Amino acid sequence: MSVQQIHSFAAGQWLAPGAGARQIASAITGEVIATAGNDALDVQAMLGFARDTGGPALRQMTFHQRAKMLKALATHLHQNRQAMYDLSFDTGATQADNLIDIDGGIGTMFVIASKGRREMPDGHVYLDGGVEQLGRTGQFLGQHICTPLQGVAVHINAFNFPVWGMLEKLAPTLLAGVPAIVKPATASCYVTEACVRLMLESGLLPEGALQLVTGGLGDMLDHLGCQDVVSFTGSADTALKLRSNRLLMERSVRFVAEQDSLNASILGPDSVPGTPEFDLFVKEVCREMTAKAGQKCTAIRRVIAPAERTGDLIEALSARLGKTVIGDPRNEATRMGALVSDAQRRDVLEKAAILGQEATRVFGDPDAFEVQGADAEKGAFLPPMLFHCADPDSALRVHDTEAFGPVSTVLGYRDLDHAVALANRGEGSLVASVITHDPEVARHVAIGSGAYHGRIYINDRVSMKESTGHGSPLPHMVHGGPGRAGGGEELGGVRGVMHYMQRTAIQGSPDMLSAIGNRWVPGATEIPAPAHPFTRRFGELQIGETLHTEPREVTLEDIEHFAEFTGDTFYAHMDEEAAARNPFFPGRVAHGYLLLSFAAGQFVMPDEGPVLANTGLDGLRFMQPVVPGDRVKVRLTVKAKTGRTEEYGEVRWHVTLTNQDDAQVAEYELLTMNAY
Amino acid sequence: MSVQQIHSFAAGQWLAPGAGARQIASAITGEVIATAGNDALDVQAMLGFARDTGGPALRQMTFHQRAKMLKALATHLHQNRQAMYDLSFDTGATQADNLIDIDGGIGTMFVIASKGRREMPDGHVYLDGGVEQLGRTGQFLGQHICTPLQGVAVHINAFNFPVWGMLEKLAPTLLAGVPAIVKPATASCYVTEACVRLMLESGLLPEGALQLVTGGLGDMLDHLGCQDVVSFTGSADTALKLRSNRLLMERSVRFVAEQDSLNASILGPDSVPGTPEFDLFVKEVCREMTAKAGQKCTAIRRVIAPAERTGDLIEALSARLGKTVIGDPRNEATRMGALVSDAQRRDVLEKAAILGQEATRVFGDPDAFEVQGADAEKGAFLPPMLFHCADPDSALRVHDTEAFGPVSTVLGYRDLDHAVALANRGEGSLVASVITHDPEVARHVAIGSGAYHGRIYINDRVSMKESTGHGSPLPHMVHGGPGRAGGGEELGGVRGVMHYMQRTAIQGSPDMLSAIGNRWVPGATEIPAPAHPFTRRFGELQIGETLHTEPREVTLEDIEHFAEFTGDTFYAHMDEEAAARNPFFPGRVAHGYLLLSFAAGQFVMPDEGPVLANTGLDGLRFMQPVVPGDRVKVRLTVKAKTGRTEEYGEVRWHVTLTNQDDAQVAEYELLTMNAY
Repeated sequence: MSVQQIHSFAAGQWLAPGAGARQIASAITGEVIATAGNDALDVQAMLGFARDTGGPALRQMTFHQRAKMLKALATHLHQNRQAMYDLSFDTGATQADNLIDIDGGIGTMFVIASKGRREMPDGHVYLDGGVEQLGRTGQFLGQHICTPLQGVAVHINAFNFPVWGMLEKLAPTLLAGVPAIVKPATASCYVTEACVRLMLESGLLPEGALQLVTGGLGDMLDHLGCQDVVSFTGSADTALKLRSNRLLMERSVRFVAEQDSLNASILGPDSVPGTPEFDLFVKEVCREMTAKAGQKCTAIRRVIAPAERTGDLIEALSARLGKTVIGDPRNEATRMGALVSDAQRRDVLEKAAILGQEATRVFGDPDAFEVQGADAEKGAFLPPMLFHCADPDSALRVHDTEAFGPVSTVLGYRDLDHAVALANRGEGSLVASVITHDPEVARHVAIGSGAYHGRIYINDRVSMKESTGHGSPLPHMVHGGPGRAGGGEELGGVRGVMHYMQRTAIQGSPDMLSAIGNRWVPGATEIPAPAHPFTRRFGELQIGETLHTEPREVTLEDIEHFAEFTGDTFYAHMDEEAAARNPFFPGRVAHGYLLLSFAAGQFVMPDEGPVLANTGLDGLRFMQPVVPGDRVKVRLTVKAKTGRTEEYGEVRWHVTLTNQDDAQVAEYELLTMNAY
Repeated sequence: MSVQQIHSFAAGQWLAPGAGARQIASAITGEVIATAGNDALDVQAMLGFARDTGGPALRQMTFHQRAKMLKALATHLHQNRQAMYDLSFDTGATQADNLIDIDGGIGTMFVIASKGRREMPDGHVYLDGGVEQLGRTGQFLGQHICTPLQGVAVHINAFNFPVWGMLEKLAPTLLAGVPAIVKPATASCYVTEACVRLMLESGLLPEGALQLVTGGLGDMLDHLGCQDVVSFTGSADTALKLRSNRLLMERSVRFVAEQDSLNASILGPDSVPGTPEFDLFVKEVCREMTAKAGQKCTAIRRVIAPAERTGDLIEALSARLGKTVIGDPRNEATRMGALVSDAQRRDVLEKAAILGQEATRVFGDPDAFEVQGADAEKGAFLPPMLFHCADPDSALRVHDTEAFGPVSTVLGYRDLDHAVALANRGEGSLVASVITHDPEVARHVAIGSGAYHGRIYINDRVSMKESTGHGSPLPHMVHGGPGRAGGGEELGGVRGVMHYMQRTAIQGSPDMLSAIGNRWVPGATEIPAPAHPFTRRFGELQIGETLHTEPREVTLEDIEHFAEFTGDTFYAHMDEEAAARNPFFPGRVAHGYLLLSFAAGQFVMPDEGPVLANTGLDGLRFMQPVVPGDRVKVRLTVKAKTGRTEEYGEVRWHVTLTNQDDAQVAEYELLTMNAY
């Protein structure tokens, strides 16, 4: 078998391994299969290429353009994923593991692309929250905006997910408009390199948007500044070393860390043997122990169960773990492959020995287990190992020592508060789970241990068919955790994009805020509509274009007629004395929906035109009652426009209804679909 | 004059100065007026008191209860503010400065209290964003929540705002439900101590919620963990020293830093002499130079103006600065008091000398200026000093050296891109401003330099009457900035509260999410209403209580009648062939507002009862057209409840309209006010 040369992609050039290159062994055979790294890497040229070429090109694009690019990239990777599967087996991963890593990474990119289209504007500025009135009359306002950082994101990834680990960081970074330099862990970097090659060769990315370092980063971190981000996944030791870099600290360089943690799973007190939840718990624990041979930062390390159930539980877990076929991951029958390297295997055994000082091994013997279709001596194989700690309160190591492999420890709890306290002993984790059918148990755990966990996963008979697993970070939800887990956050939809953007508080007049956010703000200049805005196509409408209608009188007859027609005969509309007793009304008033309906009658054009449909309405507030004889007029202003398909886009209209005294009686935002 | 003993408040006891105490001199007379600090401070007892007594008591309260407490505290401080004014003059502050510090701090607490009432729930869990559907049928969902950290917040504050600096951190911390230990800078800690005494003696705070360290913190930071937060305001040097603490890094202790920065103000190219904007710019720069004798982290350090206008500008600034009366801050005529200490005065002179290497001093001579009513030799007085840097591109020090006093440097720019580049040379600032009447100039600056600034302040003739000043952080808007400014954020309404809470991604079934968030989630169990829910009082209604109405047929006659009555004769309602040409409709369809109105008719009760008014509606979406003959029924469910006054509260109802095939045709959230 030939030894593959794993390249870096630096400043537009592929760079082969050179001086300082490291050898990479197969997890299955122990043979050297690749080399990577080159001391001649020019990190300053790489940073310059990202900042001066990649960044400006990405920032030229709108959020929607970048989201479309991500979707195309994900589609391209999906079509070419077999090449990545083929390489990945040598990392010890089974095909089930590949689906988590490779398909999971591609799926994450699809979701982030879709969030970008649906939840971000087709522009260059993302608005965070609403407008704040900072002065008395509304001539001085506030609005938070987010704009892309003008530097580069350096992604330092762990060995266990060579594809997902890259894509889950890359997708939000590119969506933000920031170029990335990706540095995968050397042990599995050949899979990452294949994925990067696919993306670069697709031609979908602007030049400078993506570079790759296989091997060491050199002194790259010493050259970062206030517009750059380091996003790290890996061990606490490495994180500490990196984050102690004095230059990073001096310049307040953003450092997002996601470290391994002592994640817990709690068996609810109601989940006794015989319930669907007990079986579900056994399944989840075994899956978390064996998937990726337990090399998952989210894997369950502490199994927290009612003390009186630990016997039943250990029995059930052992029975299920006993069926785990360990061996060559290319074999379909294999349920658990190898660890990534012999070094990793030795590390797990060392940590397991530390756990052994406080806990008894109740399943799995690293000196006696079967390996199918591979040489147990040469590959980095281990069996699943389950421990039981009889005194979890005085134990220290089971709460702070992570054996990053197929290893977990069972701890008994006295009551739910004790279970929460034990979970929190991890001093900050990525995830805790609770398997319960009782919402009060779930609420108790969430309130008691939410502050210690980045994610809490609850599962029961209702959600189990659709649930995604304790260990799976999802692109919609934040991934990260406090304390031992590193104190960072990733993903979480648009939240994850914000790590690569700067939030800025903007203060100014309505016209200034409208121009910056490309969204009309009440109080800003109204552009007189050159024709009725409902006759103007999506592309013709300008932000701020405004129609004022003639007033329409609301009569008592209208109110009575509407009440009779709709059936809404609420006393405030029908009975003068009763209405006057109500704290909000002076006497009989018009129905709110009568006002909405009349308003539509005042501005809707009857004939076919560019407005195709009224699709919704947001933020309707009734501000002052309308009494019989009031004359209500409508102001309709184009607030924002968002392209949706090739044929039409969404127009958001700001609508105010005012009475004959120019007092606002209602305000809302109307949504229509308009042809281009 | 007697020397005042400034106490600490530690673990429930007032502790007088002792071994290791430092002397504090008056900024005006140079005489020692106070001592503070005691080496015997028991930091572990303080942390324990906060974590074990203060935290649990605060977490028992809801967000609304804590908000009410803050409002009462702010009211108490407002009533007793004279005592703080009296002390504050000795820090060198004028009465105008006192208003910024003391009234500004109290006002910030009022706003945070009000945000807590209006924007947070009356419960223990804050929901961040909406529900995410994670599975195919909606049985597995996601929701981000925030819960209070279970540790303590250590606030380390700067000397310049002894009251505001404390309260702007304390209000969000207490609202979050987290106890605080406040450590003011020693130079002005006697004002802070007075404020803390007022708060503690009010009896409004639970025991353990607030402690005070005057003097040194000892080794307190070495005892913090993953549930604690350090929030620091001060110099970059001190921030670096603190954040390098290995234990803080190892445990990923949150560290929020707000450092001084080289804030810029840009004179827009349109703001030529003779415009209101030119005069406004001169006013803002002079105010920022002289308020608090320039000892403001947000003060304008770099005045960026069109190169061809710098002559006019320096002339106008000099004329205005020349009118600044410097002297005893107790005198009403005084416009600028003293710096906080002689050490600070010497530091400013050293930094001004560094600026002098690259810039010419064009106004103000520290060796020749008048001081009114005080001894210029004994007090820490300085005149405003304006510099002009002729070559801002090759200059280094004007972009990185902060003279923390009444010092500013004028830099000329060639065009707007050059102005943006110069502003960004600060490598991260708290605030930049641009004085322009042209929204395109504002947009250009916001997009070009947003990534370098935590806040961008825009002012012109329209907003100048209501604007709050370049240098004023507002409680509604985030305060902080990237890079040199420390990379932290504070305030920004609810955003600022999040620094003291943990965000957790919750995954589970609809019932689990409903129980945790105390907010009904579609798909969760419906509680059959024991009587029509509109007959039940606020306190009786349960989250999840649901009414199903009978169906009502929508006839063609209804549609035509509604069209004629309201005037909305859109072709999709009136013309079968034209409607069928529309991409969204199969033929003639009912008006959306007809459906809303009929739905109200289906569930509104006519008689007087606990529902007082329909106040609004959110998130209405029309999902499927309703054609003549469709039979539409309504489901009305209590989604959330929020107390508003002593008499009534707001009920948020989830409403779905479904047709005879059980397909959803519309969905929205309805708001009503209900009597208790």
